[in-house]
Amino acid sequence: MKNYIYKCFDCNSEYTPKEIENNVIYLCPNCGTANRNEPLKGVLNILYDYEIIKENVCKEHFLKNPVGEIWIYPYLLPLETENHKITNIDPLQFEKLRLTKEPIYNIEKNLQIFDDTRNPTLSYKDRATQIIILKALQLGIDEISAASTGNAGSSLAGICAKLGITSHIFVPKNIPASKRIQIQSYGANIYLVDGSYDDAFDLCLDVSKEKGWYNRNTAYNPLTIEGKKSSAYDIFISQKGEVPDYIFVSVGDGVIISGIYKGFWELKQLGWIEKIPKLIGVQAKGSDAVVRYLSTGEFNFIEANTIADSISAGAPRNLFMAAHSVKESGGEAISVADEEIINAQKILTTKYGVLAEPSASASYAGFTNLKKEKRISENSSVLLMITGHGLKDVSSLEKWNDSPKIKSTEEWMKELI
Amino acid sequence: MKNYIYKCFDCNSEYTPKEIENNVIYLCPNCGTANRNEPLKGVLNILYDYEIIKENVCKEHFLKNPVGEIWIYPYLLPLETENHKITNIDPLQFEKLRLTKEPIYNIEKNLQIFDDTRNPTLSYKDRATQIIILKALQLGIDEISAASTGNAGSSLAGICAKLGITSHIFVPKNIPASKRIQIQSYGANIYLVDGSYDDAFDLCLDVSKEKGWYNRNTAYNPLTIEGKKSSAYDIFISQKGEVPDYIFVSVGDGVIISGIYKGFWELKQLGWIEKIPKLIGVQAKGSDAVVRYLSTGEFNFIEANTIADSISAGAPRNLFMAAHSVKESGGEAISVADEEIINAQKILTTKYGVLAEPSASASYAGFTNLKKEKRISENSSVLLMITGHGLKDVSSLEKWNDSPKIKSTEEWMKELI
Repeated sequence: MKNYIYKCFDCNSEYTPKEIENNVIYLCPNCGTANRNEPLKGVLNILYDYEIIKENVCKEHFLKNPVGEIWIYPYLLPLETENHKITNIDPLQFEKLRLTKEPIYNIEKNLQIFDDTRNPTLSYKDRATQIIILKALQLGIDEISAASTGNAGSSLAGICAKLGITSHIFVPKNIPASKRIQIQSYGANIYLVDGSYDDAFDLCLDVSKEKGWYNRNTAYNPLTIEGKKSSAYDIFISQKGEVPDYIFVSVGDGVIISGIYKGFWELKQLGWIEKIPKLIGVQAKGSDAVVRYLSTGEFNFIEANTIADSISAGAPRNLFMAAHSVKESGGEAISVADEEIINAQKILTTKYGVLAEPSASASYAGFTNLKKEKRISENSSVLLMITGHGLKDVSSLEKWNDSPKIKSTEEWMKELI
Repeated sequence: MKNYIYKCFDCNSEYTPKEIENNVIYLCPNCGTANRNEPLKGVLNILYDYEIIKENVCKEHFLKNPVGEIWIYPYLLPLETENHKITNIDPLQFEKLRLTKEPIYNIEKNLQIFDDTRNPTLSYKDRATQIIILKALQLGIDEISAASTGNAGSSLAGICAKLGITSHIFVPKNIPASKRIQIQSYGANIYLVDGSYDDAFDLCLDVSKEKGWYNRNTAYNPLTIEGKKSSAYDIFISQKGEVPDYIFVSVGDGVIISGIYKGFWELKQLGWIEKIPKLIGVQAKGSDAVVRYLSTGEFNFIEANTIADSISAGAPRNLFMAAHSVKESGGEAISVADEEIINAQKILTTKYGVLAEPSASASYAGFTNLKKEKRISENSSVLLMITGHGLKDVSSLEKWNDSPKIKSTEEWMKELI
């Protein structure tokens, strides 16, 4: 007996898990479309019977859950369960999926970071991969594919390696070298596309359909959103039931921000929180479709161009849900220049010892700007979502670090003393 | 009232904390020498009053400590305390030092890894840096130096950035590019030496002495050993009081293995464990001074030459203590070829999803060899220490991964379907 349904975010059609999962359907069968250079239509939202959960789980009990182990609360996951446990998974497999356990800490008064750079493959994307992999194991699928700007791909490749599943990763040719070698090293099949992320996305859909590979494309597979909601729970648990006033999140395809919103929205449905944090979606100026959509109500495709590769998306696949999440939370979407992103990366690293990749640093750049404009009061509690490790993109670090001098020991002695 | 003493590992002279710390002395004042291309003599060992600890702390209580937060048991640390708490440290600073919380998991039956690649700067070295930094804060020192092959340097640089301390890092010019850029990005002063790690080590000693910088050089500063013992405690706590039969540890300067031995030795002094795991020190064939010393009883300097940069040390600074640790634990020191290290790295990554740098993979190579020779029985429990992340040395990954093909979407479609 499953306690959830799939509901189309656009046309509101509802489906049982059987209808969707047994046929391995991703988008709404009624209105779903995945057109070239357009946001997806018919992204499915998974809704649980919150009234039943409410009757069976109390807030105090939920708050005792460990952080980073989403399988502990299977009643909020689209997975097969029996006696409140996820079925068909060897318990040892769970250990391999464990996320960072204490991601949150203060870097200034009222300013926290959520450091997801210490996950199994060093990015937030492991949250989505966790759930996708558990689903694939339950479905008996042993080949999974993904299009990626680097992090989703290395996440899928790494966790597939841990669990003995074959992975197929489609990436644009210009992804950072460290991300590419990370994907390859895990033994994934990698397909470098002479084109953009948007091209890789479409190619991955077409090939996966023909091959029968389970597809992890972000937003397209609704379980990516379900996986990404776990940071909201982790914040709630870590903060003992409290939530910050603002959360700054970098936005590319818009799935992370949609997942975070979903997690908090669910906590509200369960009556465990009163307010959802204001979500501030931060985009790069050269990839700002959500900002534009929220201000004009229209989407126009503009080829993305930014140093922050992980949030470079001309057609954010989850545009509509991301915009909805920002709006409903009372937040807003803003954009920052590439120079501001690099500067933010520099400050995060040198001042706070947090080595984040450019796209992850955008959240701090956005925060700095709103703070400068006095649009965040001193007493507000702010959390910055840090989504990927800086060593995944070494070339961006080279941009602001000089090539250091090499000297003999005698020369250094002379210079230093 | 301090409950520990400094005791020379070589001449057995004993000193009070006051004698050593107030004068910022590192090696034994009686016999200590730091000669070029030689192991250090007079490394100081810190010993606590284990009888008093025994009377005040019971095993069951100790086992409730969190993993990764060494400051929770200040009675086993050479730090100033008051009412059982470390003094003069802002509690928020501790959060920034937190290590990975659940480092241990099974990759096969009876085979566990201790994954220290998810520490704040992605290596085991953060364990030593934790204690060095806490000591520096207590001493009111705000400049710290280290010689490094990369990981100790990036660890010191990163954690100094978090705590607002200036760092000075001396490295050989040929360190992996990712480690160099990591050190630089944290805002450290970096000194690239036209020479070996051994040259950088000596230079760092000389300059630091002149400048009055607190020196984190491994083994030279006895607190590095104290920091590195924490993994033994973390194993003990994670395994609820049990310890594995064997621990495989890669060995360069010999401080990690000495630290691990020290931690278990202390647990034995406290009566909390009966046996110390057999420590198998794994060296690269091109840097095998500990192996040679244990078989001949003699040290000869041979310029180190191995792909595993982190364990490349012609003159292991902590040679004598490392050899003692191996012997006393009932273990042994073995060496593996560079090709075996690369092959081990490949298997760890592709089969287990563990992306470790070459030196960290040497432990697995050593295990594979002993297993092949049937010198480890099927029923023995084995733990592999994984000390550094693979993305810290991208060039080693390039060695066994081809440059992937780039194709247009049409070409991929044609090839794949």
